[in-house]
Amino acid sequence: MSDKGFILWFTGLSGSGKSTLATYLIPILKEAGKKVELLDGDEVRENLSKGLGFSKEDRDTNIGRIGYVANLLARNGVVSITAAISPYRDVRDGVRAKAQVPFVEVYTESPLSVVEERDTKGLYKKARAGIIKQFTGISDPYEEPLKAEVVVHTGSESIEESAKKILAYLKSKGLV
Amino acid sequence: MSDKGFILWFTGLSGSGKSTLATYLIPILKEAGKKVELLDGDEVRENLSKGLGFSKEDRDTNIGRIGYVANLLARNGVVSITAAISPYRDVRDGVRAKAQVPFVEVYTESPLSVVEERDTKGLYKKARAGIIKQFTGISDPYEEPLKAEVVVHTGSESIEESAKKILAYLKSKGLV
Repeated sequence: MSDKGFILWFTGLSGSGKSTLATYLIPILKEAGKKVELLDGDEVRENLSKGLGFSKEDRDTNIGRIGYVANLLARNGVVSITAAISPYRDVRDGVRAKAQVPFVEVYTESPLSVVEERDTKGLYKKARAGIIKQFTGISDPYEEPLKAEVVVHTGSESIEESAKKILAYLKSKGLV
Repeated sequence: MSDKGFILWFTGLSGSGKSTLATYLIPILKEAGKKVELLDGDEVRENLSKGLGFSKEDRDTNIGRIGYVANLLARNGVVSITAAISPYRDVRDGVRAKAQVPFVEVYTESPLSVVEERDTKGLYKKARAGIIKQFTGISDPYEEPLKAEVVVHTGSESIEESAKKILAYLKSKGLV
């Protein structure tokens, strides 16, 4: 068991399983003796970024804040899990560059057609109807990571399979 | 030695010694085996509250964010020290109410005449001249705590004396 903190940074389309996977991993990581905090997109917007919208600039500011807090926690031995869409590559790479702890980017890859078909929160339907503007994947870009530490294919894998891949990576790096 | 986290919340006028005392305490707390993070007013504004001004609403939002992050850290065993003026009583009490960890309010009491005479950063002069608007103590209110855990009189005490009082309180509560 290692008491090192690190950042487990999920990125991917809305509905691609970021929060689901994060939530699945939390008890496993705690069982392994880690302290864990989940910085979820919605909770962080409420507490740190109220008033910000979904323009590129506002999204970037929001992601920068998540990165700042994730790093503060992780350098004190906490596993900081983030589960915000974080669509822009340069901003994710900026957070990575500032991190004083291991930064593990997990890309929850899923074809748009699959997450849109699922549409668990009904958001894609609203985005297609123009009710939600600047929706990632529909009316706003998503930039895939080019060098994510772990890529999971949530459109075709089970949660267990995806979680196993992530845990295998963490173990291989001595992080759990 | 306790591995409990807590929030050490300094409040007081600009120039009353919040950051100085916080900085003085950090190595002592680390020597005692604690993990410590200082959430300084200026650093937090840069990282979490860029774009916010000094209206009551914006100040309150800023303080709420500091409180949110301080609590996240402290519930993971870190001593979160904050050193923002935090002039409004209801907002400080709001942070206290939300804290899931011991909340230790330290009031760095100093007469306005003393901090203004010292004016280490030259801010009071600018506030009197109207160059800085909404300056706490001059053109904006400061509400003294009514039930701070520790009151230090930085206008008349040495740093060592004030620090001793704070450490004595923390020891009496089993926090260090």
